[in-house]
Amino acid sequence: MRFAKGHGTGNDFLIVPDPDDELAVTPRLVASLCDRHTGLGADGILRAVRTSPGGQPAGAWFMDYRNADGGIAEMCGNGIRVFARYLLDHGLADGPELVVATRAGLRRVTEEPGGELTVDMGPAEVLGRSVAVIGGRQHDGLEVSVGNPHLVCLVDQPVSGIDLSQPPLVDPARFPDGANVEVVRVLGPGILEMRVHERGSGTTLSCGTGAVAAAVAARTELDSNSGIAASTWTVRVPGGVLTVTLAEATSLLTGPAVIVAEGDVDEAWLSDPAGLPAATSMHS
Amino acid sequence: MRFAKGHGTGNDFLIVPDPDDELAVTPRLVASLCDRHTGLGADGILRAVRTSPGGQPAGAWFMDYRNADGGIAEMCGNGIRVFARYLLDHGLADGPELVVATRAGLRRVTEEPGGELTVDMGPAEVLGRSVAVIGGRQHDGLEVSVGNPHLVCLVDQPVSGIDLSQPPLVDPARFPDGANVEVVRVLGPGILEMRVHERGSGTTLSCGTGAVAAAVAARTELDSNSGIAASTWTVRVPGGVLTVTLAEATSLLTGPAVIVAEGDVDEAWLSDPAGLPAATSMHS
Repeated sequence: MRFAKGHGTGNDFLIVPDPDDELAVTPRLVASLCDRHTGLGADGILRAVRTSPGGQPAGAWFMDYRNADGGIAEMCGNGIRVFARYLLDHGLADGPELVVATRAGLRRVTEEPGGELTVDMGPAEVLGRSVAVIGGRQHDGLEVSVGNPHLVCLVDQPVSGIDLSQPPLVDPARFPDGANVEVVRVLGPGILEMRVHERGSGTTLSCGTGAVAAAVAARTELDSNSGIAASTWTVRVPGGVLTVTLAEATSLLTGPAVIVAEGDVDEAWLSDPAGLPAATSMHS
Repeated sequence: MRFAKGHGTGNDFLIVPDPDDELAVTPRLVASLCDRHTGLGADGILRAVRTSPGGQPAGAWFMDYRNADGGIAEMCGNGIRVFARYLLDHGLADGPELVVATRAGLRRVTEEPGGELTVDMGPAEVLGRSVAVIGGRQHDGLEVSVGNPHLVCLVDQPVSGIDLSQPPLVDPARFPDGANVEVVRVLGPGILEMRVHERGSGTTLSCGTGAVAAAVAARTELDSNSGIAASTWTVRVPGGVLTVTLAEATSLLTGPAVIVAEGDVDEAWLSDPAGLPAATSMHS
């Protein structure tokens, strides 16, 4: 089994090429590969499967994205850039524009002149207002949908000082499946800093949909306050910098994608990835 | 740059073969490679350098061990097994017995029939009694030297219930450079369970010298209580199971060593591993 390891603003992935859809990627194998001590370690796996020859668009690749716990996930704004970087580097897709098939539908990815990648994330929508309790303090927030649910709380203090060690509390009537909670500070015209607590994953170094939600929320608040707001936002996250462009009917996410290494998973390990001590679930 | 990733009871390493000592392994490169999100991720790096032809013993390999923070370390009971497994798998050393050169001196490693590896860890010595404050509670302990300093606290409760989230406090007069602190419970004749807080690393899944220290402490306490104690100890750690044999003038550590994957570090990444956002130091 070949693999590459890469990351986008600190969100890291194992890319597993499987053009002919031959690998049995069980949840247990995914979790074993993603274990950071007894496996290779990653936030998730991106299996690259060539879509059927009769499919549309012709020659597109399907991004089979799995979370580190083995569960299936629809889309990942950081992962799809790393996925596209891998395809381009290996001549498996032609740039600068390619289409990637995901469980959330087709996504257009464009390679920028400097090497960053832009993903068409689809429309993002403000649904209303709500509150979150973060580190014991109540914060007002905007509910934003980017396909998945976000609660964006604009704050006046440096986001590094906000306690995200425990999952923020959100209104279960508004978020029956939970929410990703962002704390966002406006640093200047079109510049934000953001930290995020992702439902199911905890505090992470970066979140692509969260960056889009943050930009949408900031534009909404500034619009209502001043009538002036940017359409392009620089979003600083702990793992790096993302750029969000809010267009008429969609949102674009631009950021880096880095391949760190490539290789082969050991055959003996692969034949018995289940041979791990039960206690390895003790660490994160 | 070739690499392999492996682990011994959950203590994980990148093995970097460098027979002719040509790689400039700077602390920054080590830290970048060991970063679990923007690099490959590991507890440390084991660079394999062939010793000079005139050296003794002829053909031995030097284990250049670096901690994840880039600092130099002398020896690692889990790392040396992974190092030996790599040499044996690649035909770079003949088994079942080989000698590895470390900064702590030559270490004999033996491959057991079942594939586990035994390391001669040298003598371990009880130096006295002291106390540790662990999770706000005071515990009596035995000071044990296994080349590095340990304070072993025997407890009556399951070790999983002891709060090691904060560094235990030890007597600075006895441990001017700090200590590794083990909490150890005797489960039965010759069977221990152990958790460890390693100075500089925090709570880890396993610690080879800690397992040796735990066995020495348990034998000492049981000797003085009952006059009967085992010379062979099974030590259960969060990452697996180790076996310690206490002999007349030395101690032997036996445990598994697993190779997970092998590959090449990306050339472009390697040319600029420093190109990481400063904020990546925010995660562990």
